[in-house]
Amino acid sequence: MGTELKMTAADLAAFLTREFPQVDGAFSIESLTDAELRVRMHITEAHLRPGGTVSGPSMFALADVAVYVAVLARLGPVALAVTTNCSIDFMRKPVSGADLIATTRILKMGQSLAVGDVLIYSDGQDAPVARASLTYAIPPRRT
Amino acid sequence: MGTELKMTAADLAAFLTREFPQVDGAFSIESLTDAELRVRMHITEAHLRPGGTVSGPSMFALADVAVYVAVLARLGPVALAVTTNCSIDFMRKPVSGADLIATTRILKMGQSLAVGDVLIYSDGQDAPVARASLTYAIPPRRT
Amino acid sequence: MGTELKMTAADLAAFLTREFPQVDGAFSIESLTDAELRVRMHITEAHLRPGGTVSGPSMFALADVAVYVAVLARLGPVALAVTTNCSIDFMRKPVSGADLIATTRILKMGQSLAVGDVLIYSDGQDAPVARASLTYAIPPRRT
Amino acid sequence: MGTELKMTAADLAAFLTREFPQVDGAFSIESLTDAELRVRMHITEAHLRPGGTVSGPSMFALADVAVYVAVLARLGPVALAVTTNCSIDFMRKPVSGADLIATTRILKMGQSLAVGDVLIYSDGQDAPVARASLTYAIPPRRT
Repeated sequence: MGTELKMTAADLAAFLTREFPQVDGAFSIESLTDAELRVRMHITEAHLRPGGTVSGPSMFALADVAVYVAVLARLGPVALAVTTNCSIDFMRKPVSGADLIATTRILKMGQSLAVGDVLIYSDGQDAPVARASLTYAIPPRRT
Repeated sequence: MGTELKMTAADLAAFLTREFPQVDGAFSIESLTDAELRVRMHITEAHLRPGGTVSGPSMFALADVAVYVAVLARLGPVALAVTTNCSIDFMRKPVSGADLIATTRILKMGQSLAVGDVLIYSDGQDAPVARASLTYAIPPRRT
Repeated sequence: MGTELKMTAADLAAFLTREFPQVDGAFSIESLTDAELRVRMHITEAHLRPGGTVSGPSMFALADVAVYVAVLARLGPVALAVTTNCSIDFMRKPVSGADLIATTRILKMGQSLAVGDVLIYSDGQDAPVARASLTYAIPPRRT
Repeated sequence: MGTELKMTAADLAAFLTREFPQVDGAFSIESLTDAELRVRMHITEAHLRPGGTVSGPSMFALADVAVYVAVLARLGPVALAVTTNCSIDFMRKPVSGADLIATTRILKMGQSLAVGDVLIYSDGQDAPVARASLTYAIPPRRT
């Protein structure tokens, strides 16, 4: 929806590893185009609730990272965007033991606000387990 | 996403005219497939804010009708679904004097809850003016 | 929550009458303090759905006006704030024929974003019919 | 808002320890009345982002647990409630190193849906860092 990509999937992966070492290894960027970013969340014991299902906070974390990365791809690696709002619907129980896949699109990339939405799937399934929309505030550029 | 349509666009239009005479003429159903419902809101003076832009409540009304109709298409004309939640992002100013077009998809069609999302466009524009996601509660079937 | 009021309830009523003649008469400002703004929506036939209940778009309109007015009370009458997000939960059926009352608080009044939330009641009832939270973008001050 | 408590703060703490051993120690129930539940999140390294601020997913987790516990207090310890929707606004940066405190109220306690909202504070601060509203689906009682 009209904004040019300033980073590649490889640039974004390197940026995440450098800036967010604490989440390194948790997420992989699978593909990036103007229309869609695809992020994988590698599910481990730490993400699970009793019964083997992925926890809500883990799905929130994936949605937050996915839109953050999609915004960053359009801002470039220097900018700092901050989540201001998230609305998330939990629609189905994730498949036990499967990774989660987020597909993200950016709906608005403004001077001060960016809006994106996300569908989250259990890897290999057709029906999404969650949807989310997020707003990021973009700080004024220093000139 | 997996639920069969029980009504056609023409069935839905007839149902709206019969059950919601107060909104008759405000909305047209442009197309309906498994993947997407397209609804037009005919913009009149009553929908405008000073400056000629469509009001927020009008965009909310369109989002609400669009998901309601998409749910109904899968429930059939007897059922009563009630909006329980809406999250809406207003992203751009609608074009003055243009109709609004909503494109809707149903993400979950459960026994008791349905979730859909909507993009709203000024007719003829590429970038959406708003996005919304809505949840409907579906009353238990009488047997 | 820490921001000084720059307008009284009477100032706000006069501002609404002047700037929003199309909604004049629909809303009354009942009281305004640092902690809470109380707005009444005078319910007429135009707000009703079949069965006599107040429509969702009417409740949305009340929530939007109520937070807008509460933001304006802190910005002063020159500023233009724009709704960027609303999340609304419809929790009970409004009482047929009763006015709606919104009680609003401002949770954040920042340089560029304001956040408020609202409870909506059927006049005279204890349990809220809806809750909503809204974000407003505040344009940069011209200097 | 009108529903009787079936569990005490101590009952709830014991239930959490037993049923959610993986979060044991992370949250304390500070007080519980009809009007408000107060939950403390003990902030550790694991909750922090670079710069020392508490992460968004940690605030989401607190909001989710707080409303879940408030719903449980009204349902009793046998029931299983599932989060279906969360809308969260991040309004201020949490204070580095401070615990988070959530104050929660239940706005609707229906047969099939419960709605609550939450304000989250850095311990000792007056202005909230986040607000959230959540919906839980309550499964039909087995009889």
